[in-house]
Amino acid sequence: MVLGAWASPFAIRPRIALTLKSIDYEYIEENLRAKSDLLVKSNPVHKKVPVLLHGDRPICESLVILQYIDEQWSSGPSILPSDPYDRAIARFWVAYVDDKFFPALAGILKFFPALAGILKAQSEEAKAEALGQVKAVLELLEEALKDCGKGGAFYGGERIGYVDIAFGSYVGWVRAVESMGEVTLLDEERLPGLVGWTERFCSHEAVKDVMPETEKLIEFAKKLFSKPT
Amino acid sequence: MVLGAWASPFAIRPRIALTLKSIDYEYIEENLRAKSDLLVKSNPVHKKVPVLLHGDRPICESLVILQYIDEQWSSGPSILPSDPYDRAIARFWVAYVDDKFFPALAGILKFFPALAGILKAQSEEAKAEALGQVKAVLELLEEALKDCGKGGAFYGGERIGYVDIAFGSYVGWVRAVESMGEVTLLDEERLPGLVGWTERFCSHEAVKDVMPETEKLIEFAKKLFSKPT
Repeated sequence: MVLGAWASPFAIRPRIALTLKSIDYEYIEENLRAKSDLLVKSNPVHKKVPVLLHGDRPICESLVILQYIDEQWSSGPSILPSDPYDRAIARFWVAYVDDKFFPALAGILKFFPALAGILKAQSEEAKAEALGQVKAVLELLEEALKDCGKGGAFYGGERIGYVDIAFGSYVGWVRAVESMGEVTLLDEERLPGLVGWTERFCSHEAVKDVMPETEKLIEFAKKLFSKPT
Repeated sequence: MVLGAWASPFAIRPRIALTLKSIDYEYIEENLRAKSDLLVKSNPVHKKVPVLLHGDRPICESLVILQYIDEQWSSGPSILPSDPYDRAIARFWVAYVDDKFFPALAGILKFFPALAGILKAQSEEAKAEALGQVKAVLELLEEALKDCGKGGAFYGGERIGYVDIAFGSYVGWVRAVESMGEVTLLDEERLPGLVGWTERFCSHEAVKDVMPETEKLIEFAKKLFSKPT
């Protein structure tokens, strides 16, 4: 059983991994403004989605869950590479995605015309700097696709792997951010590898049903930021 | 070969793990104000220690290195548990240590009398709140010691494991913070488990030669904060 929330990049990660492994699972959509007792009991430390309940044992934190799924159902297609060095490289890029890409992407939300009047106005310099940061991170991830994927279609080579799931889980939000911000982040000329990868990832059998739609995310973001937190 | 810096909690992690595995290694102390070409070339993304150079292959990020060491030299004593669920629990607490404990510990530095005149003065309420946060995190880690270690001497049970190395790498700084802040964080009455664990961890063969001395860390902190960054 997976406790998740449709708009959370973290919460779609275990769902993609379970589908890759051909594991059927029950899915429960949590209301994050009124968390279920099951969620609070299953993740008492953070009280956050996703939680994987395997039997009655809860596993929390999306990256911990991905590795658990890979190790527990080791007979299915591998999510992490089998070679220790390749695993280290995959783990390095996954850490980079969560530590650098996610904050950079979140950092430009406040500059959005679509959120004008909701969030505080910001200077043009600050906006340019925040955008520059996202673009620099994306350029590095374009390079990593070549190295990590060894020329294959994905970071995992010929199939979706650990880095694909971790980074790919943000693609819905990247598109929402592009639309709300009236900016192009995935520029075909500068980032041809990533643009192709994004298409392949989102149309993959294990991904297409859980990747949130851009329009729905935009509505979600407007609601989220219009309420006092 | 390990590129490290003596005062960095992150940089002592791979050294502890290599010693546990009885792997001899060359150690290079980096000057972080004048990083070596080898460091910059080996970790071009972050340019940070630690880096493990295994032959000519660099592995970066302390937690990635720990897992690499465990997988590469799998015949030595295990660092992560062998059962997937126990591994997930260990990974969960390691993430907690770096995401919650480290920022909480760093967050009280600015309230220190020993750093008065160097850092900006803060209110008493803010100080009490920051201290309360560290204490709450430590209480949870006291509980985790019982669950994760299953009644053993360490988080890894009868021997030092992944959580011990990750959390234990901060013990030198905890002691320095207690001294500089004139506060007791590891209170014997409230945290008897952690106090005993700290002693056992620091006197362990694999740890005692790399755990930085409290007095040296205090001198280091004063110098660090007295320079413009």
